[in-house]
Amino acid sequence: MTTKKIPDIIIGRLPLYLRALERMANSGEIVTSSKELGEWVGISAAQIRKDISQFGEFGKQGTGYNIKFLSEKLREILNIDRVWDVAIIGAGDIGHGLARYQGFLERGFRVTLAFDNDPAKIGSKIGDIQVQDIDKMVDAINKSDVKVAMIAVPAEYAQDVADELAKTQVKAILNYAPICITVPEGVRVQYIDPATHLQWMTYYL
Amino acid sequence: MTTKKIPDIIIGRLPLYLRALERMANSGEIVTSSKELGEWVGISAAQIRKDISQFGEFGKQGTGYNIKFLSEKLREILNIDRVWDVAIIGAGDIGHGLARYQGFLERGFRVTLAFDNDPAKIGSKIGDIQVQDIDKMVDAINKSDVKVAMIAVPAEYAQDVADELAKTQVKAILNYAPICITVPEGVRVQYIDPATHLQWMTYYL
Repeated sequence: MTTKKIPDIIIGRLPLYLRALERMANSGEIVTSSKELGEWVGISAAQIRKDISQFGEFGKQGTGYNIKFLSEKLREILNIDRVWDVAIIGAGDIGHGLARYQGFLERGFRVTLAFDNDPAKIGSKIGDIQVQDIDKMVDAINKSDVKVAMIAVPAEYAQDVADELAKTQVKAILNYAPICITVPEGVRVQYIDPATHLQWMTYYL
Repeated sequence: MTTKKIPDIIIGRLPLYLRALERMANSGEIVTSSKELGEWVGISAAQIRKDISQFGEFGKQGTGYNIKFLSEKLREILNIDRVWDVAIIGAGDIGHGLARYQGFLERGFRVTLAFDNDPAKIGSKIGDIQVQDIDKMVDAINKSDVKVAMIAVPAEYAQDVADELAKTQVKAILNYAPICITVPEGVRVQYIDPATHLQWMTYYL
């Protein structure tokens, strides 16, 4: 694996390739091509070959990619050849859905902490996790291995939560609140925003 | 507005530009530049100018973009200068979260129908909407104006739901189930998959 700077947009495509490869593996496929992979993810074969070749020689001209091998390499590159502990902030509908989401563990994540500010929710369980008082969040996260957090609070609280997370070792935030948050240098944020996905599709209606 | 074929990847960036413009407008800004817009969305100023110029001349060299005007144009282009009725299939945690989501209406969407197969949920209300029996979905959607649906059922049911939706006029599906679905030609699908977002960020951890 090289250590040269790879464009972020390429990094963003690797999880899509990995997801497609895992689905192929589940269907019993052993080998794939950049063409087949491209059809699964809606990206050209040439782009896929170019993206993957940034990280090394993982396929052979004419024989394609071994699915298991390429999946393992992508997991290494994405640092998910391990399991990351994750905190959920906000134990409402979305927080519950995330805590119960079946797809995380096999893809590198395990929800281990949950927080809310609602006395009715504090102490209750979502999945196997007891919801803790958000006032204890900074301490609890700093005592844990959590470096990844998901914000699932109403928009008006999201920045406050982000400011508190800045006092912890959390370096990756997935934000479900429909608002842009400001974080310190070195912290990454991604947004889950259903409206932008819907708007992308209504163009074609 | 031109009718030439615009690459899908450009269409996908327009909702991000619109979201940033709406946030700027909410902060009282009147005018912006491709540079400022680029900083909001993490895309180069040159790319933004190129993307927007596909649709016409919406800004002036040196004076930038009028935020209100460009927002209106983007809404027209994305067909959200109207409100789309949306059906939710699956009244679990995610379905509830979506039905109560505050961000939809002002961004072009209104949830009007909800379905589930669980007798305990059928007849209950999520937000203002009564959950209907999924067996009545095809009829109910076909009697409605719904062309957009969100699938929020467990993975094992998602393809069955997609097959039933294929009997309706639904042409855009946002799939929260962690599984790839097959749909007829002419139907678009987008996926909400938190794990791919998290994996994008763990690369940097």
